[in-house]
Amino acid sequence: MKVLLGISNKHVHLTEEDYKVLFGDEPLGIVKELVQPGQFSSDKKVSIKTEKRTLDNVRLLGPLRSYTQVEVSRTDSFALGLNPPMRNSGDLEGAEIITIIGPKGEVTKPCCILANRHLHINPTQRQELGLVGIDKVCARIDGVKQTVFEDIYIKEDPNFTLELHLDTDDGNGALAATGQEVEIFVK
Amino acid sequence: MKVLLGISNKHVHLTEEDYKVLFGDEPLGIVKELVQPGQFSSDKKVSIKTEKRTLDNVRLLGPLRSYTQVEVSRTDSFALGLNPPMRNSGDLEGAEIITIIGPKGEVTKPCCILANRHLHINPTQRQELGLVGIDKVCARIDGVKQTVFEDIYIKEDPNFTLELHLDTDDGNGALAATGQEVEIFVK
Repeated sequence: MKVLLGISNKHVHLTEEDYKVLFGDEPLGIVKELVQPGQFSSDKKVSIKTEKRTLDNVRLLGPLRSYTQVEVSRTDSFALGLNPPMRNSGDLEGAEIITIIGPKGEVTKPCCILANRHLHINPTQRQELGLVGIDKVCARIDGVKQTVFEDIYIKEDPNFTLELHLDTDDGNGALAATGQEVEIFVK
Repeated sequence: MKVLLGISNKHVHLTEEDYKVLFGDEPLGIVKELVQPGQFSSDKKVSIKTEKRTLDNVRLLGPLRSYTQVEVSRTDSFALGLNPPMRNSGDLEGAEIITIIGPKGEVTKPCCILANRHLHINPTQRQELGLVGIDKVCARIDGVKQTVFEDIYIKEDPNFTLELHLDTDDGNGALAATGQEVEIFVK
């Protein structure tokens, strides 16, 4: 079966409390709606800082969430001198400490992870695609650097729509691009 | 069959002529021998520059070669604003123009590529492993982000020893590390 691919560059999610520390009373604006309903690329950027390095212009995604989280690729993590664990979004067990800097302030907390490969899906799509009771799928990216990605976690929510998320290491390694259709299958 | 994995960060090869432009009469020193016999990480670093960005501290590998070449990952290429083709080392058809800067001077030429995934092997090893007449293999990286890399080109030379080379996008995406053993197989 074919699904839409989205490649996630490093980005930040913030709680309302942390947003206020970083941006004060500035309203959070929408630059672009993302494929997942209600999610958007915001008009705000932050810097992320470790003892080794600061990376600027890291996009804040919206809306605000119940947790603050910095998602980076392993390549980014080497640049930052961190060794973050691979986690499902919102699971910050063992997350690396990082400082997030905005125009009005900064927060430092253990919130830096590598996001797992995951497939967004709603219950109807999951039933239609025969993926009920299945936790992980594989995806094949065609091209001159053909690659099979395994360990893709299925994330079901009524608000989701069918979309495969890979980070920039995986996506760029396979010469893949956001918006292309890729084949997924059960191993 | 198991082979040793080497993950190649962005790096530069230079001709003797270009080396002299960049470093003058400074001798080329060895910092570390690489796995492939005679190849080494040199004591020289350069900057690589495009209209969009300059990346510093890019390692020059030795010895000097018959061609000047800058090998980057696709992630690096986005940072540089380039769209280099995937090529076998030394094949610079369609290579992107880039400026290489050393302490004594700089050269600008179409020499920036994405290196293909490749397996170094010598004729004896190729025969022993049953890979004579086979052009490409696949590799499986185990772990929490299990991945199968296809399109791995076999590069045979009497001076080579068995080693799989992936770039940082592929290697970091699979959470792989230089020096680990990985399974290769014919599709």
